[in-house]
Amino acid sequence: MLLALSTWQEIEAYLERSTAIIIPIGSTEQHGPNGLIGTDSICPTHIAAGMAEKEDMLVAPTISYGMSQHHMAFAGSATLSPSTLMAVVIDIVGSFRQHGFTHFYFLNGHGGNIAPVTSAFSEIYAGHGNDKTSPRCRLANWWRDSAIAALAKELYGNAEGYHATVSEVALSYHAHPEAVKHAEMEPAVAPTDEFYDAADFRRKFPDGRIGSSPQLATVADGERFYQLAVETLTKDFHAFVANS
Amino acid sequence: MLLALSTWQEIEAYLERSTAIIIPIGSTEQHGPNGLIGTDSICPTHIAAGMAEKEDMLVAPTISYGMSQHHMAFAGSATLSPSTLMAVVIDIVGSFRQHGFTHFYFLNGHGGNIAPVTSAFSEIYAGHGNDKTSPRCRLANWWRDSAIAALAKELYGNAEGYHATVSEVALSYHAHPEAVKHAEMEPAVAPTDEFYDAADFRRKFPDGRIGSSPQLATVADGERFYQLAVETLTKDFHAFVANS
Amino acid sequence: MLLALSTWQEIEAYLERSTAIIIPIGSTEQHGPNGLIGTDSICPTHIAAGMAEKEDMLVAPTISYGMSQHHMAFAGSATLSPSTLMAVVIDIVGSFRQHGFTHFYFLNGHGGNIAPVTSAFSEIYAGHGNDKTSPRCRLANWWRDSAIAALAKELYGNAEGYHATVSEVALSYHAHPEAVKHAEMEPAVAPTDEFYDAADFRRKFPDGRIGSSPQLATVADGERFYQLAVETLTKDFHAFVANS
Amino acid sequence: MLLALSTWQEIEAYLERSTAIIIPIGSTEQHGPNGLIGTDSICPTHIAAGMAEKEDMLVAPTISYGMSQHHMAFAGSATLSPSTLMAVVIDIVGSFRQHGFTHFYFLNGHGGNIAPVTSAFSEIYAGHGNDKTSPRCRLANWWRDSAIAALAKELYGNAEGYHATVSEVALSYHAHPEAVKHAEMEPAVAPTDEFYDAADFRRKFPDGRIGSSPQLATVADGERFYQLAVETLTKDFHAFVANS
Amino acid sequence: MLLALSTWQEIEAYLERSTAIIIPIGSTEQHGPNGLIGTDSICPTHIAAGMAEKEDMLVAPTISYGMSQHHMAFAGSATLSPSTLMAVVIDIVGSFRQHGFTHFYFLNGHGGNIAPVTSAFSEIYAGHGNDKTSPRCRLANWWRDSAIAALAKELYGNAEGYHATVSEVALSYHAHPEAVKHAEMEPAVAPTDEFYDAADFRRKFPDGRIGSSPQLATVADGERFYQLAVETLTKDFHAFVANS
Amino acid sequence: MLLALSTWQEIEAYLERSTAIIIPIGSTEQHGPNGLIGTDSICPTHIAAGMAEKEDMLVAPTISYGMSQHHMAFAGSATLSPSTLMAVVIDIVGSFRQHGFTHFYFLNGHGGNIAPVTSAFSEIYAGHGNDKTSPRCRLANWWRDSAIAALAKELYGNAEGYHATVSEVALSYHAHPEAVKHAEMEPAVAPTDEFYDAADFRRKFPDGRIGSSPQLATVADGERFYQLAVETLTKDFHAFVANS
Repeated sequence: MLLALSTWQEIEAYLERSTAIIIPIGSTEQHGPNGLIGTDSICPTHIAAGMAEKEDMLVAPTISYGMSQHHMAFAGSATLSPSTLMAVVIDIVGSFRQHGFTHFYFLNGHGGNIAPVTSAFSEIYAGHGNDKTSPRCRLANWWRDSAIAALAKELYGNAEGYHATVSEVALSYHAHPEAVKHAEMEPAVAPTDEFYDAADFRRKFPDGRIGSSPQLATVADGERFYQLAVETLTKDFHAFVANS
Repeated sequence: MLLALSTWQEIEAYLERSTAIIIPIGSTEQHGPNGLIGTDSICPTHIAAGMAEKEDMLVAPTISYGMSQHHMAFAGSATLSPSTLMAVVIDIVGSFRQHGFTHFYFLNGHGGNIAPVTSAFSEIYAGHGNDKTSPRCRLANWWRDSAIAALAKELYGNAEGYHATVSEVALSYHAHPEAVKHAEMEPAVAPTDEFYDAADFRRKFPDGRIGSSPQLATVADGERFYQLAVETLTKDFHAFVANS
Repeated sequence: MLLALSTWQEIEAYLERSTAIIIPIGSTEQHGPNGLIGTDSICPTHIAAGMAEKEDMLVAPTISYGMSQHHMAFAGSATLSPSTLMAVVIDIVGSFRQHGFTHFYFLNGHGGNIAPVTSAFSEIYAGHGNDKTSPRCRLANWWRDSAIAALAKELYGNAEGYHATVSEVALSYHAHPEAVKHAEMEPAVAPTDEFYDAADFRRKFPDGRIGSSPQLATVADGERFYQLAVETLTKDFHAFVANS
Repeated sequence: MLLALSTWQEIEAYLERSTAIIIPIGSTEQHGPNGLIGTDSICPTHIAAGMAEKEDMLVAPTISYGMSQHHMAFAGSATLSPSTLMAVVIDIVGSFRQHGFTHFYFLNGHGGNIAPVTSAFSEIYAGHGNDKTSPRCRLANWWRDSAIAALAKELYGNAEGYHATVSEVALSYHAHPEAVKHAEMEPAVAPTDEFYDAADFRRKFPDGRIGSSPQLATVADGERFYQLAVETLTKDFHAFVANS
Repeated sequence: MLLALSTWQEIEAYLERSTAIIIPIGSTEQHGPNGLIGTDSICPTHIAAGMAEKEDMLVAPTISYGMSQHHMAFAGSATLSPSTLMAVVIDIVGSFRQHGFTHFYFLNGHGGNIAPVTSAFSEIYAGHGNDKTSPRCRLANWWRDSAIAALAKELYGNAEGYHATVSEVALSYHAHPEAVKHAEMEPAVAPTDEFYDAADFRRKFPDGRIGSSPQLATVADGERFYQLAVETLTKDFHAFVANS
Repeated sequence: MLLALSTWQEIEAYLERSTAIIIPIGSTEQHGPNGLIGTDSICPTHIAAGMAEKEDMLVAPTISYGMSQHHMAFAGSATLSPSTLMAVVIDIVGSFRQHGFTHFYFLNGHGGNIAPVTSAFSEIYAGHGNDKTSPRCRLANWWRDSAIAALAKELYGNAEGYHATVSEVALSYHAHPEAVKHAEMEPAVAPTDEFYDAADFRRKFPDGRIGSSPQLATVADGERFYQLAVETLTKDFHAFVANS
């Protein structure tokens, strides 16, 4: 059930059945020579839609802009400052709480969001520490799920990488097969390193990839990640709602 | 050309041809008994995609959460505070400016966004008042276009209304025919009035509509609005880029 | 009754009779070659004083600095950022609410204040949506009143203009006849156009006027606007208090 | 020369002669049984006008709302939070600096403004520490001037007090003789004490006065304070401009 | 009793005996040629430890960074902006209030903290004006205590000075005899003057001292200040707790 | 070399040799029945002092308050909001940068600081992305160092735990042997679980420990952690300075 395609009366009815909501969150940032700038938003949006197709779960509109400061030396990347992203998360959770939602499952596609979103959760909890109906927030990073990570390891070994990974590019291609791209990349597996600011990132990773070979990504692989992610994150969602 | 489905190299190439970008902005809020909660985001996203299909224009991901404080008494509505929405707009414009974009065409689907987005533009200009390459921002409210308003008047007369209007519901149905809803509404044309806070809004407009009869909305009408909006806003976009 | 010239015991007594307050709000910005920099503050201050002379209404001190970013290329103009102006409005409403005031009638003299003050109202309502005693805020733009606009049209036709209008300059002269100025202006009626930032404003409107001929302004006309504004805004104030 | 009653061309001309500006700042807060709520704004406005009458000095519109948190238990008092007042001061100084002003003489009527305005000055200086043309800000508290304090001592001894002082009430009466009030007060000289929050203030000073006998205030005394303040603060202003 | 060296159960027990806490606050800024950069933090930390040794008082960790904007032209100085320092104070008071603390005794070592900390107190009180258990905050500036000032006057006369004073350097030496420094200074007594920004400070006080001769500081004198400060501030603390 | 015990001239001289600085950062929060509330500040302060004793490194004063929202249900814990902590870090880095420091090595004792401090780094980098001399910030979490973790594993196996760990309590005891505490704990090894807000934390971990047996902590073990941490973090510091 997609919030954007529902009426308010349908949401009122949903709240009788559940007070949990899935909020996909991603970013708008470069993903190497053949990866889509929307990759990090497309992946959780795609998984969440799959979850909602199979079970009675409500999915909110995707937060499409995230914290991507370190990608800003590549054209087309956009970033919210950490403070702005925190405010967005706090406002959205606060809004849905007014209607009776209690469980906020942020389905995340971007590592750079982890620090600010986690910080936002702390600010949200600050006002509710002694309240039995205080909100419960979870940041579920789909690519860190152990089953997903195992599949990526099995398929690509070390070429999976850390940014513009094969798995995320494949999953985005499954969501948007019309946007599959082909590009030459040298070296085949991108370098890895620590990095500091955006200029440093670009110096060390001149085509935007970190440690990955996204030229290996296929729609067929993307479908495997999609099926697995829908299954495994559905379980994670249920565990979150049941145990918190 | 959709930013989300492009690579950074493709954006680098686009910037050789144009430094203008379309940023759809909407909201997540109730739209009456048969209108979609995502209506205000769906409409500008749909129009922008149509514009980008016909001409070489770049469309950024939609800002799907807007300033909807006055709708908060209806389940499923979410709002950013005006300050948060301002920060989002400032950060996104600031990001794209780093890559050389100069013209920011916010294609807006929601009246409640006008005050904070206009305020954000003032904060953006504050730092660039004496700079020849200072940014140019335009908030284009698609439903206020004179041709669009004339068509709505012709088709529905006063039943077009002010919130959950027939035209926006029709346009959203054209974008998502799978989500067309049917609902009884009493009275046929909703009341109109001034309103203050969210509770006052709900008291005066108990089913969420203001002055409208969205039960008249059809996919076919939606297509007419779509075609007209693509045409008329494309002209508006060109005029903005040429004259500012 | 002017708050600034009252004692706290007098306000305590007033609150027994009414919980409504008028708060004039203006700006400090250029108003063309013969218009006063204080025009936008002088006008609502003057009207409000007139209202309070005739009826038992309380008038707060004027907020003399507004959002004037677009006038910053002209000497003497000052601006609060939109965020700062929002904070000022929020703090003042919050203060008076502590004493039991419920109705806040902002008598506004400046178009640039509309977006931030409207945004501030949304932030104020956010905390009070389900509260029967929630505040009621109204932004009354004196020059947009239909009777005022009709008089300006009758007297000056299109030469009334959009900034440094004849009517506002005339009204400010009625308030401060000692400050009437004379200046040559070319062309007689200033140009009109869309504008972006402060530098753009100055390029397009080199003497600060938009579409107006303020050289037509006289104290005598100012008196007509004054009398009419006091009468029509008094009605508007009563309607606001009675119906919200 | 009053900024509010000048045109932008007149300010442009003034800037050829001087880059200093006087900005009166006060508050809107209770001043005991016979003191005006506007006392703290009226006094510096009055003195500044006197200074500008005698010499070629430019006076900006008064900042009429200050930091009055501790007076909030008395009807009619309004307060900006310290943060808001800081933002107001920062924005106004920043605005005038854009036109070439360098010396900002805040003529202050209210002790509660000292901490936030001083804090604002530090934030203003932060961006200009190594800049030869960095701004110079002075907070001149008229009642702390040694000549003024000596006159108050001479006239009233200890009955001058600390809030709703005889001198400030007298000076406000000189500015607004139409608003002179009479009230019984018990005890004749109000108590003094340390205080914490607004409720504590009211408990300790039930009629709003601290240590004062404002029933002694007369228009005639007010004129003496006025003449002396205009003279002594004019000197202070010149010293500030010459030595910083 | 030092909070940092206690367990939470020990604090729970302390709260049965007292709800007052001492919070030392200082700065990290230059203190002339032989003064320590940590002087302003070391002094209140040292005094507070002495107080806690002799009586059952709880001392929180020192806030070691303060508002030192005006010292920023000297290497090693660090400053929080006034806004940041206010946020720190507000958060710390708010935290301890959650556990039941009611009296917050800020033992201050730095004049530059006075404006922002006082401003923070106003923001803290804003939310508690009508609450019988509202917090009580005191900013105790150890060097302004009349007994301390008298001792400094007796020992050094005018050479005590205003920054990098003999008394504070002596007290810091008593706390850290291993860090006693010797340096030539010209002139023997530093100049005094008003100052504006950091560059202005350095121009007027090239070695960092204002009006002082810290070369007179000795550990033995430091002990005298220490003993006296512990005694006199202990009394001040008790008076604060008893009377507010 | 401790900044707090240095003069500004000594820092000026240090900057000729190095532009790197160590900034210990911790928290003020419960650490179980026998752990010190200052544990997370004591540990990095202690290690940093050890590093500075052996080599020519500069150590700034410790940031003693961190982000401890989840510990707020235990007496004596204090927290900065994530936003406040971010501001503190941004201001301190900005301050030292003014003197020429380029490398900021935050030696961290508290997991809860990771999200806000990482967020602060992104805000710091935002202004410096294309600047060759942009700052380099590193958050070194001493307990996550692989050698340290291996030693803890070897000594305590799973009883090391996740909060109030044996290693950190031991290290704090080595720094403050006068504060060693003894307490009965049931069960011997505390439970582990996911947690949400502060109330949830207390419900799940009633004595404050997560998964640990801090009753095993000894001064002797603390010395081993100390020696190892000084050695291994010194290497990490050199690698940071050399490679970034």
